[in-house]
Amino acid sequence: MYKKLFIPGPTHVRESILEAQTAPMVGHRATEYSDLQAEVTPKLQKVLYTEQPVFMFASSGTGVMEGSIRQAVLKRALMTVCGAFSERWYEIAQANGIPSDRIDVPMGEGFTPEMIDEALNRGAYDVLTVTLNETSTGVMNPLKEIAAMVREKYPEVIILVDAVSAMAGVKIEFDAWGLDVALSSSQKCFALPPGLTITAVSERALKRAEQVPNRGYYFDFVDMLKYFKRNQTPATPAISLIRALNQQLDDIFAEGLDARWARHIEMAKTVQAWARKHWELFPSEAFLSNTVTTIRNTRGVSISDLNKELGKRGAMISNGYGKLKEQTFRIAHMGDLTVEDIRWVLGLINEILGLE
Amino acid sequence: MYKKLFIPGPTHVRESILEAQTAPMVGHRATEYSDLQAEVTPKLQKVLYTEQPVFMFASSGTGVMEGSIRQAVLKRALMTVCGAFSERWYEIAQANGIPSDRIDVPMGEGFTPEMIDEALNRGAYDVLTVTLNETSTGVMNPLKEIAAMVREKYPEVIILVDAVSAMAGVKIEFDAWGLDVALSSSQKCFALPPGLTITAVSERALKRAEQVPNRGYYFDFVDMLKYFKRNQTPATPAISLIRALNQQLDDIFAEGLDARWARHIEMAKTVQAWARKHWELFPSEAFLSNTVTTIRNTRGVSISDLNKELGKRGAMISNGYGKLKEQTFRIAHMGDLTVEDIRWVLGLINEILGLE
Repeated sequence: MYKKLFIPGPTHVRESILEAQTAPMVGHRATEYSDLQAEVTPKLQKVLYTEQPVFMFASSGTGVMEGSIRQAVLKRALMTVCGAFSERWYEIAQANGIPSDRIDVPMGEGFTPEMIDEALNRGAYDVLTVTLNETSTGVMNPLKEIAAMVREKYPEVIILVDAVSAMAGVKIEFDAWGLDVALSSSQKCFALPPGLTITAVSERALKRAEQVPNRGYYFDFVDMLKYFKRNQTPATPAISLIRALNQQLDDIFAEGLDARWARHIEMAKTVQAWARKHWELFPSEAFLSNTVTTIRNTRGVSISDLNKELGKRGAMISNGYGKLKEQTFRIAHMGDLTVEDIRWVLGLINEILGLE
Repeated sequence: MYKKLFIPGPTHVRESILEAQTAPMVGHRATEYSDLQAEVTPKLQKVLYTEQPVFMFASSGTGVMEGSIRQAVLKRALMTVCGAFSERWYEIAQANGIPSDRIDVPMGEGFTPEMIDEALNRGAYDVLTVTLNETSTGVMNPLKEIAAMVREKYPEVIILVDAVSAMAGVKIEFDAWGLDVALSSSQKCFALPPGLTITAVSERALKRAEQVPNRGYYFDFVDMLKYFKRNQTPATPAISLIRALNQQLDDIFAEGLDARWARHIEMAKTVQAWARKHWELFPSEAFLSNTVTTIRNTRGVSISDLNKELGKRGAMISNGYGKLKEQTFRIAHMGDLTVEDIRWVLGLINEILGLE
């Protein structure tokens, strides 16, 4: 049976978007492809409020995280860790022999600019990683405020942003906020099939990359920029996914960016209100995410069984992540899901568990 | 106008394969996905005559080339360079600070086991890269014979094979030949949209990877194997492309592997005979490729104009690659193209140029 996905990626993909993948194949050095990329690029720039290049890598987000950190660090990186996904930045640095330190907050908490200021002040860092939305705990960090502090006090620090479960679901003003790299996989708020990673890159990040020895090949921003200027990519791009993206971007503008951000907030508030009523919110109220809500399983129900019952009714939510499994569960409200969809799935849970 | 692609990737993708991408999205940690990977894996193993793991990376082939070399070299790598694509191995090693040497043959030539033996004998190498099919020059290297020599005389040398424009078009007996890594992008002989890289990995390569410090994260075979055992991938896989692959593998077995290899040979012979009659073959007769033929433009026609005329008739061939542009042109005969397709496109060229 078909299940509508309320998991934090892959999220629900509409049929018309799946269909957009079926256009006939074209050569990636032919004008048929360049025309496509030339169409998509300004649309992506609009979604990210940027005039900087926005690259499309055939890769999961993790690949581009690795690529980004490999071409950003000359001295040392500081990673802000608030859960399993923000910890990945640190793990990646370790797996690549890149000098780095981490600061941690308890799960459910996020980072304030002050905490990061204090940590940056302690060392000779030239890179900071921030996870805009920590998908495991449902924490959204105040990226705008963090970036403002960094840009003012540490102008040489490159800000790498994992915007994986946030981009195209929440407003990210890439240029105005002074970000350096912001990346997202396609299967989250873009509501596309997985396999494509959208990556905005600042001039500062590109200049830094030029200076980094052994920065790698496949994800090299400098090489990417060369091809970007002629609406191509160095390696063969994921053409069918880019077609789906092109269709999706048109649909995003048809809804309107502000309406899209507002819808995500409304979906979040709907789930949060329901969670406060029947359970407890896992994250601190100061850091609630607009795209995924992590809920404390205060009723001690079997989340696995609950999901089986939901499956029979055509829906799927997500268990807690890693150590938080069964202690928490997650409802994602991202991409093309609507407030009605959210009400429907919450209604199903109420019905299954006999809540009010 | 729709153009049937006779370029060496992306190659022509049949409608039913494009359609296979449109199945509803599923969670990559759900049984719906694991069931899919569990179906695909043994089919891939059959295509590669192997019982070793065959991984599917959301990436272009170049990414996995980089990942492979980063986790193979403890001492020094030897790269066999016979054109732009085999040279990429060397460029990647340079971009990653990996100690390596290259041996070159003139364009149009390939490598014999003796040449590689002599080179391996000169240095303390623990990795050899071989490009099975050099897509720029249309050279196919005698991989089986090369591997036999290496396995006999240099048992510790890891053989990394770029099988990008060959896998699923020519017979590669991964286990019997003693290969260590063989990778291919989806948009070549698999005749799928781009974005997926199929990668067979030997136990020897996995053991080597375990020993390599700073071997990277996203393409880490050791991590990949952990998830592979439960039919998953560490990062989110390219689900819609894997669906297309699953359909394509069924179609491949419906044709029959031996029939598929024979068809590729027949297509190659058809193009070669035509090229000998009207032009000259660019590669040496000893190294002719079964999947792409590079032809010397002895008639001095404008390949670009020829392709424009072909475009009006619904077909596209490929100009020469890099420095070989306009001096050569390429006709790819791979994937799901048929001998009739090949006769049709050759007929069109005859008609446009008034050949016989």
